[in-house]
Amino acid sequence: MGDLAGVAVFAASGGALAVAKRLDLFGVAFVGVVSALGGGILRDLVIDRPPVAFWDWRYPATAVVASLLVFWWHPWMQRARRVILLLDAAGLALFTVTGTTISLAVGVPAVGACLIGMLTGIGGGLARDLLLSEIPVVLRREIYALASLVGAAAVAILVRLDVANIANLILAGVLIFAVRLVALQRRWSAPTPRDGGP
Amino acid sequence: MGDLAGVAVFAASGGALAVAKRLDLFGVAFVGVVSALGGGILRDLVIDRPPVAFWDWRYPATAVVASLLVFWWHPWMQRARRVILLLDAAGLALFTVTGTTISLAVGVPAVGACLIGMLTGIGGGLARDLLLSEIPVVLRREIYALASLVGAAAVAILVRLDVANIANLILAGVLIFAVRLVALQRRWSAPTPRDGGP
Amino acid sequence: MGDLAGVAVFAASGGALAVAKRLDLFGVAFVGVVSALGGGILRDLVIDRPPVAFWDWRYPATAVVASLLVFWWHPWMQRARRVILLLDAAGLALFTVTGTTISLAVGVPAVGACLIGMLTGIGGGLARDLLLSEIPVVLRREIYALASLVGAAAVAILVRLDVANIANLILAGVLIFAVRLVALQRRWSAPTPRDGGP
Repeated sequence: MGDLAGVAVFAASGGALAVAKRLDLFGVAFVGVVSALGGGILRDLVIDRPPVAFWDWRYPATAVVASLLVFWWHPWMQRARRVILLLDAAGLALFTVTGTTISLAVGVPAVGACLIGMLTGIGGGLARDLLLSEIPVVLRREIYALASLVGAAAVAILVRLDVANIANLILAGVLIFAVRLVALQRRWSAPTPRDGGP
Repeated sequence: MGDLAGVAVFAASGGALAVAKRLDLFGVAFVGVVSALGGGILRDLVIDRPPVAFWDWRYPATAVVASLLVFWWHPWMQRARRVILLLDAAGLALFTVTGTTISLAVGVPAVGACLIGMLTGIGGGLARDLLLSEIPVVLRREIYALASLVGAAAVAILVRLDVANIANLILAGVLIFAVRLVALQRRWSAPTPRDGGP
Repeated sequence: MGDLAGVAVFAASGGALAVAKRLDLFGVAFVGVVSALGGGILRDLVIDRPPVAFWDWRYPATAVVASLLVFWWHPWMQRARRVILLLDAAGLALFTVTGTTISLAVGVPAVGACLIGMLTGIGGGLARDLLLSEIPVVLRREIYALASLVGAAAVAILVRLDVANIANLILAGVLIFAVRLVALQRRWSAPTPRDGGP
């Protein structure tokens, strides 16, 4: 469930960026699908299970439908850049939580599970940005991957304490979403190197 | 067979682009090998079998030889851009058909098998374009990934109807090749977003 | 051991490039981790074993620590570009040797094992350069991937002759490091296409 919701919001974020770049119908669907399924495919390759994106038709179907909705409805999306960032933050939260939970469930140690959760969360957006020659969102100033990692650690702690029920996992997702949005709003960022570099 | 022919034409397409970018001998061979083996390695990772590119030396050998032939013979290739597009279309057709067939054979459901077939077809060219900082061919205006997807669907239907003999599979490949070339010729493309976007 | 040393030097090379690009603390750590773990993750996916980077916390920990040391100490690194090239050459040597050895040990044929060794060696640097929109080091003029391939072939021959002890493997690594550094110093490169290309 969380997984399919993540697919939908990441497909919409990728589709919206592709629309902003003036791609055609199939370009929009393609970027939407890559953004939506990229992180989960990476996750499944790493934990060595058949990528659900290819075994369950609802995944690509959700991604295609969400991309096409953005293609047709985008004129109603005012300030698309802001919408893209919101959708992206929601996808980051959803995929981080499901990626971390699934990795722990198949026996990955805690540190690795957090990294895989982060990879699931940032993978689709990274593929989207590489494809469209954008500066990867993960390298921009405001906190992004760190929000994901903090949320993944929260999930690992919940699981360790044996209190990882749906309500608590949703809280972890809200934590990621909130940290990311506040970071965007307040332009939070990490410190930069002390001098001008080489 | 179809697989090794796809390796040769994709290596030639990658090598020709690398020559056009003035890379040296090893750069040309490297880009040729990545273009030729990238799609198949992705396919094998996704269906979880040992990537044939590393287990069967004929794959890298074919890729290296084809790249080097392009390196030495390229002055005879007039209008290289056109040759690259032709080779690329042939590789797209061959890899899509073999990728879809193999995926169905290992039990991937039809929708997923078509996606893996498309991924096999477009993977090498995508890696080539990312490596050389070209706009990915898959995102350019003329129909490309869609040609692959249509051919993959044709293969899936042939298999479902139990008539997937060599002759019919070749027909599916010719379909992909023809759709791609006609799209290039007539500048077919999908519709674009309704207004100027955000 | 060689593997963790490779992680440290590649993390430092990635971190130093990220510092030179004025990324912030987490950007530097992120690029360092990707550079350090990218090649090994690729290798483990291809030989189908659980990526050690996610199963053994010492790998990401080493990468993070090495990146942070570069972040804080970089003012002492004079002429960072030269330091990056040195670290990169050391990582190339270490990862090529461990990648080839591991691949042979799990039964990959010699040609494939050399390719996987090369992929392990160049994978992290390639990911780093794609992420930072640098021209991939592997496509620049001076011999790079070829040095890796020559060393991988040396390892394969040592293993075939049954003399692949630690001392000999270190020699193979030194060979790669030396070829790369001499190539940089003397601007060795492969021949370029005969005329201006198309």
